[in-house]
Amino acid sequence: MKKLMKGIVFGGLAAAVVSGATLAGAAQSTTKAGVTPKAQSQNLIVLIGDGMGPAQVSAARYFQQYTKGVNHLNIDPYYVGQATTYADRGEDGGKVVSGIVTDSASAGTAFATGHKTYNAGISVSNEDVAKPFASIIEAAESSGKATGLVTTARITHATPAVYASHVRSRDNESAIASQYLESGVDVLMGGGKQFFVTKDEKGKRTDKNLLPDFKAKGYTVVENTSALNALTSKNSKVLGLFGSSHVAYVPDRTAEIPSLAAMTSKALNILSTDKDGFVMMIEGGRIDHAGHANDLPTLVQETLDFDAAFKTAIEFAKKNGNTSVVVTADHETGGLSLSRDNIYEINIDLWNKQKHSSESLAASLEAAQTPEEIRSIVTANTWITDLSDEEVTQIMNGDGSSYKREGAYNAVISKRLLVGWSGHGHSAVDVGIWAYGPIADKVKGQVDNTQIAKAGAGILGLNLEKSSAELQSKYLYPKFKISRDNEVLYPAGALAKALGGTYKGDTATAKLSLAKNTIEVNLTDKTAKLNGKTAAYTVDVDNGVLYLPLNAFSQLKGTTLTWDALSERIILR
Amino acid sequence: MKKLMKGIVFGGLAAAVVSGATLAGAAQSTTKAGVTPKAQSQNLIVLIGDGMGPAQVSAARYFQQYTKGVNHLNIDPYYVGQATTYADRGEDGGKVVSGIVTDSASAGTAFATGHKTYNAGISVSNEDVAKPFASIIEAAESSGKATGLVTTARITHATPAVYASHVRSRDNESAIASQYLESGVDVLMGGGKQFFVTKDEKGKRTDKNLLPDFKAKGYTVVENTSALNALTSKNSKVLGLFGSSHVAYVPDRTAEIPSLAAMTSKALNILSTDKDGFVMMIEGGRIDHAGHANDLPTLVQETLDFDAAFKTAIEFAKKNGNTSVVVTADHETGGLSLSRDNIYEINIDLWNKQKHSSESLAASLEAAQTPEEIRSIVTANTWITDLSDEEVTQIMNGDGSSYKREGAYNAVISKRLLVGWSGHGHSAVDVGIWAYGPIADKVKGQVDNTQIAKAGAGILGLNLEKSSAELQSKYLYPKFKISRDNEVLYPAGALAKALGGTYKGDTATAKLSLAKNTIEVNLTDKTAKLNGKTAAYTVDVDNGVLYLPLNAFSQLKGTTLTWDALSERIILR
Repeated sequence: MKKLMKGIVFGGLAAAVVSGATLAGAAQSTTKAGVTPKAQSQNLIVLIGDGMGPAQVSAARYFQQYTKGVNHLNIDPYYVGQATTYADRGEDGGKVVSGIVTDSASAGTAFATGHKTYNAGISVSNEDVAKPFASIIEAAESSGKATGLVTTARITHATPAVYASHVRSRDNESAIASQYLESGVDVLMGGGKQFFVTKDEKGKRTDKNLLPDFKAKGYTVVENTSALNALTSKNSKVLGLFGSSHVAYVPDRTAEIPSLAAMTSKALNILSTDKDGFVMMIEGGRIDHAGHANDLPTLVQETLDFDAAFKTAIEFAKKNGNTSVVVTADHETGGLSLSRDNIYEINIDLWNKQKHSSESLAASLEAAQTPEEIRSIVTANTWITDLSDEEVTQIMNGDGSSYKREGAYNAVISKRLLVGWSGHGHSAVDVGIWAYGPIADKVKGQVDNTQIAKAGAGILGLNLEKSSAELQSKYLYPKFKISRDNEVLYPAGALAKALGGTYKGDTATAKLSLAKNTIEVNLTDKTAKLNGKTAAYTVDVDNGVLYLPLNAFSQLKGTTLTWDALSERIILR
Repeated sequence: MKKLMKGIVFGGLAAAVVSGATLAGAAQSTTKAGVTPKAQSQNLIVLIGDGMGPAQVSAARYFQQYTKGVNHLNIDPYYVGQATTYADRGEDGGKVVSGIVTDSASAGTAFATGHKTYNAGISVSNEDVAKPFASIIEAAESSGKATGLVTTARITHATPAVYASHVRSRDNESAIASQYLESGVDVLMGGGKQFFVTKDEKGKRTDKNLLPDFKAKGYTVVENTSALNALTSKNSKVLGLFGSSHVAYVPDRTAEIPSLAAMTSKALNILSTDKDGFVMMIEGGRIDHAGHANDLPTLVQETLDFDAAFKTAIEFAKKNGNTSVVVTADHETGGLSLSRDNIYEINIDLWNKQKHSSESLAASLEAAQTPEEIRSIVTANTWITDLSDEEVTQIMNGDGSSYKREGAYNAVISKRLLVGWSGHGHSAVDVGIWAYGPIADKVKGQVDNTQIAKAGAGILGLNLEKSSAELQSKYLYPKFKISRDNEVLYPAGALAKALGGTYKGDTATAKLSLAKNTIEVNLTDKTAKLNGKTAAYTVDVDNGVLYLPLNAFSQLKGTTLTWDALSERIILR
């Protein structure tokens, strides 16, 4: 109950959420589709610096000034405003699971679809029934535009996922990959091959290798810089997978791992051939990862890698003349502070002296048995020749987080660099917005991150609410629980009503009716009858809510309902 | 030497600084006065949230949403950009004393005068000779406008000081008070009475009580809310001193201590009667102090106090129709992070449960002898009834900084509030800019803080460089050193040249000439001759530089030069 008190009603800032627990089948009639605006740009490029809070941007600018003598980032001349990033409260059984501090899934859902949701939700509602919200990429797809998602994270990671998939948990990355196959998105580039192939192929899928399916749909699959470079604008569909997990950090990349700018350039080359225009999202996905690890030297290099991708995008937009560009972040990561310990200085001359990311050292740091081994690892990767006994002990003890010795290594480095962190998580500070073209006037000043999606749809002449209604009409998105026997069970009242039926019940009995069919349940002895005849349904009562298996609802409705376990939704047609 | 490596040449972003070590007497001819622009606003209100970085603003907004259900700060609709805040490098004898992380003096000099300087410098140059830069308040004063400085800090603190005084060190607050007397600023309101009265009157001045002098110049002196309220627009000159040091924090104020909004309202009432218009600066000076102490609950209240003062200012500006308003911060303080320890939450329901500031507890925390006393102090001031033994010990041990037990108390509170800090100092993150009226277009986007001064001068039709040249022609601003006998000595070569003379010297002898006068110095036996006759000058050689006392230069020049010890300058006329 304590946790509940933290909830804030963000009435004025929050996007209006369709009220009630109406299931998707009925959503079409209750969602206001609104008026489709007139297009002002044919193309839209959205760039997301994941975890790129205000201090990350300042750090990258000062680092660039020091190392290259260049005073401005490429994004600087386009700064127009800042955005609040808070998540919607995720209430499940009265327990608040998120609030002011967002994750990438919730923030991404906001700037991709214009709707707030709970942390971990991938473009699904935070209502009792998590129905999907259409993203600007999906709306663009429907209108015939070419679309693309490009990232240095896994392509199945939260930020790209919110644009072309709908799942209750961002962790279901196999489902996200499966949904991409059906999404129609033309260019998908990033890491994350593991969610496209099976365990036999060093992947994580339990069902099948998806790559043949992508190829069958016309995708050219590329896995290194050479193959990326060989693509031409005739390769209208591309799946680029440049790593089993995320694309390697800038300081750890080999020549065969492309930069974000290289991916961006090729994606633009392909997408810009569509006469109807295009919408693409480009994510600097690993600014966030370096922030989580508290690895400042890698963080600034990832931020500059992102800024270089922006340069590619803005140069295209200026030449093209019919393209809007908008840049923002999903949230800040790490609680980065440029200074620490009451010293009015940062040791910026040391920021470029780490050879590889801390991530690349993590395994060897964990494996080290002696102080000498720790010393040797640190000396080999940094400028440090005078690692103290205390620092060695600090690294060997780990930092108490899941980052263990890597976290402690970064704590040692950060103290010497004179930068501070508040932990390994996200923070709630507002994030910057940069923009070019007709979209700029619609995202300037102090806005909420949902405005990014709304402004994008506005200047493209797309109707997000209409696209959401279409999406919601294809499937049912019921709540469910999984029993000990791995059976998927559904709340009887909510699902019966969603199917158009009725539910009546007390603590002893329950009755579901739809047209001529009736299911009667004895809640005491957990037995059920379909139209008066005993039915072998699993009967489960949890916190006063009756749950039944899908075949009960199929028989009630008189049609075969199919549960798609990967996407966690019931296929209607 | 190590420190020197950290220096960054901020060529493109930095304001052009008049080059060379020319002393002020010659500055008139070398400073480019430029073209005075045409006025677009008659009045300008500058609001400075001291220490109000991005996270401070987000924190205040979320706090207000939680406690009042109001979704937007008053400043929110006026957000237009952000500013870099870095200090100029302060090189003195080859030692770098500041850099990327600014203090309020350096940042204030930038946004008041348009010039970067070193940390601690109050509107003086970072060149070999620290000549003054005119502020927008001084330029407005010259043009006949009314002027005002209003703050919750001491009125002699760095941020107000940069607008109407010029000293090498912000710590010289008695000199700042003395310079205010000559400044012509019409309304001065804040704390800091201690720098206007002598030690006998619980003040810090060693010379005299300045209040009679202020009264003689027509100032009405007020020291509480009643007296403030009793002022009318006929009181055209006001000195408000609402505290011996800073004005009490919001949670510690009595009814007789005015809010920043109350001071702002009265100041506007008075200044707006000037037919030539007015320029005023309003500072939320204690957002910074609460940040330094890491006292989050007080920090958010001070930020909202500042936001309320903005409301007063913007309502005036909208009604007046000929007023520009600009808001920014000098820097971030504390390295505040909204979340910590990898928890995606802030305990915002606890942010309004601290009764008084941590500052108000500091003395009793230090005096406490037993754990029970600590427990009792914490329980009396907060919601905490379950202070752990570890937390008690943490408080009793202090935090190792100058904040001692108060710092440790705030560390305990902050951990429970789920907010983080990187220390007790400032950080280098860019700060927000909010604006209204013709100035808005000139401070939007990504700018440097010097642009605030330049834009203000631009829309008022004032010429800052011309005002600086006038200011620099009135005094000499030589380097100096103070001997063990408290004698002020000057570098012979630099001062002789500044006075229009010549200097020739080697390791054995030196010769100063000006018109018919000559001083010859024997560096070996430390003797001197004026026009061939022995002169009883103190002769000092330090690091190869010859220093002489002021009477030597008076005799060389043939006029009586006077050293103003308070303002550390030589009066020319």
